[in-house]
Amino acid sequence: MRNIRLTLEYDGGGFSGWQKQAKQEVRTIQGELERAIQTLLGGAVETNTAGRTDTGVHAFGQVVNFVIESDMSIRRIPYSLNAILPDDIVIKDAVEVPPDFDARRDPKWREYHYYILNRPYRSVFVDRFVCYEPRQLDVAAMDEAVAALKGRHDFTSFCNTLSASKLDNPVRTILDISCARSGNIVWAGEPLEGLVMLRVRAHAFLHNMVRIIAGTAIDAGLGNISPQDISTILEARDRSRAGHTAPAKGLTLVRVEY
Amino acid sequence: MRNIRLTLEYDGGGFSGWQKQAKQEVRTIQGELERAIQTLLGGAVETNTAGRTDTGVHAFGQVVNFVIESDMSIRRIPYSLNAILPDDIVIKDAVEVPPDFDARRDPKWREYHYYILNRPYRSVFVDRFVCYEPRQLDVAAMDEAVAALKGRHDFTSFCNTLSASKLDNPVRTILDISCARSGNIVWAGEPLEGLVMLRVRAHAFLHNMVRIIAGTAIDAGLGNISPQDISTILEARDRSRAGHTAPAKGLTLVRVEY
Repeated sequence: MRNIRLTLEYDGGGFSGWQKQAKQEVRTIQGELERAIQTLLGGAVETNTAGRTDTGVHAFGQVVNFVIESDMSIRRIPYSLNAILPDDIVIKDAVEVPPDFDARRDPKWREYHYYILNRPYRSVFVDRFVCYEPRQLDVAAMDEAVAALKGRHDFTSFCNTLSASKLDNPVRTILDISCARSGNIVWAGEPLEGLVMLRVRAHAFLHNMVRIIAGTAIDAGLGNISPQDISTILEARDRSRAGHTAPAKGLTLVRVEY
Repeated sequence: MRNIRLTLEYDGGGFSGWQKQAKQEVRTIQGELERAIQTLLGGAVETNTAGRTDTGVHAFGQVVNFVIESDMSIRRIPYSLNAILPDDIVIKDAVEVPPDFDARRDPKWREYHYYILNRPYRSVFVDRFVCYEPRQLDVAAMDEAVAALKGRHDFTSFCNTLSASKLDNPVRTILDISCARSGNIVWAGEPLEGLVMLRVRAHAFLHNMVRIIAGTAIDAGLGNISPQDISTILEARDRSRAGHTAPAKGLTLVRVEY
């Protein structure tokens, strides 16, 4: 048996999230990927993944592993999978890893970017991957708000209500977080005007956590939440106290470190 | 009467090119734009444009002008047009210009970029706007080939055959041209791996000229055309001697200088 690790990217816009579903007609990334692996390499395949992204969330550096019997060369695997996969999933890399590697259990941290296009007009080039906010954002206030989330906290207020009720442990540790005007997207040689990026790194996240942080940051940027309120919001352990859940399309899983 | 100049961008993938057509059911950028202007500002409107882009070609900095009677404030015009226009056309800017300004007649030069993604896998983020070429390109040979096109030449060999037969004057002057590995597209903070850009600047171009130059450059990059052949190809005044016409999706009208 061989343990294979894939790095992949996908446009989440056409998927009902990562996780495969019992209903065949629901299109998921895991469903498409496992079907392609089975077609190519045979046998029943179960994938482990670093980030079980929600409906509409994108990935630039998602990591997955799975165990196969096939002796296909590791070089051929990404080419052959890409030939079978739909256009909105791309395998960037495949490597053979030790039997005990688990893409879901082993990450040191995951990094997400939430992109906000803050200017008076959309961009046809990046529209699928950013959240459009034409009202002027106070980015310094946004950064001050999210900075208060750094470190180890009970993030119940920043978790989807339904999921929070089923949670054993709502404590997570944010290793790094910032919100700033960003040159992280460049088009035709020009940094995308009006781009604001929320960047957050943690070992693990709660359900909807980054999108609720992004929505809270936007609310702070619009003056509807004060950065000083964040510690009170955390202490309340009450989802209704935080900001709105920002749209999925602005969120991308960028990097996973092992 | 007021003369209005717009800067706009569009994703050409959903359009049968710039130029409006007699058949209402053919979707064109000019057709959509003039309809939106008429809806907003009333009256019959004729737009002049810097670049009458082909089917599938994109624009990052297209320039258009038109004359209206409406006294709507210039600040409101782009907002209001964007509210009416389909999502794949975005007005970036509107200014009032002197009555004699003509977007089509007055440019000093137009700049096009042709983007080639030269690596073993696609990118879900930029796939609509690049030409995918997984075979390894010799970019130095591409640059040498296109450099031979700089200056004033009869470009019949680089013009769509049908259009060439109707042409009064096939002489054009390329002011600047280069082909290189490029950091001109950055995604999530990382320059897009494997990006090759053909950049060309001229006062005016023949029909399909940039796409035939791009195809010829790719053929040179694959070793099918030698950079030394370019002067012979030019002299032949024969479309069949140049390379293939590269796909429209890789081409973007980036900038127009007046």
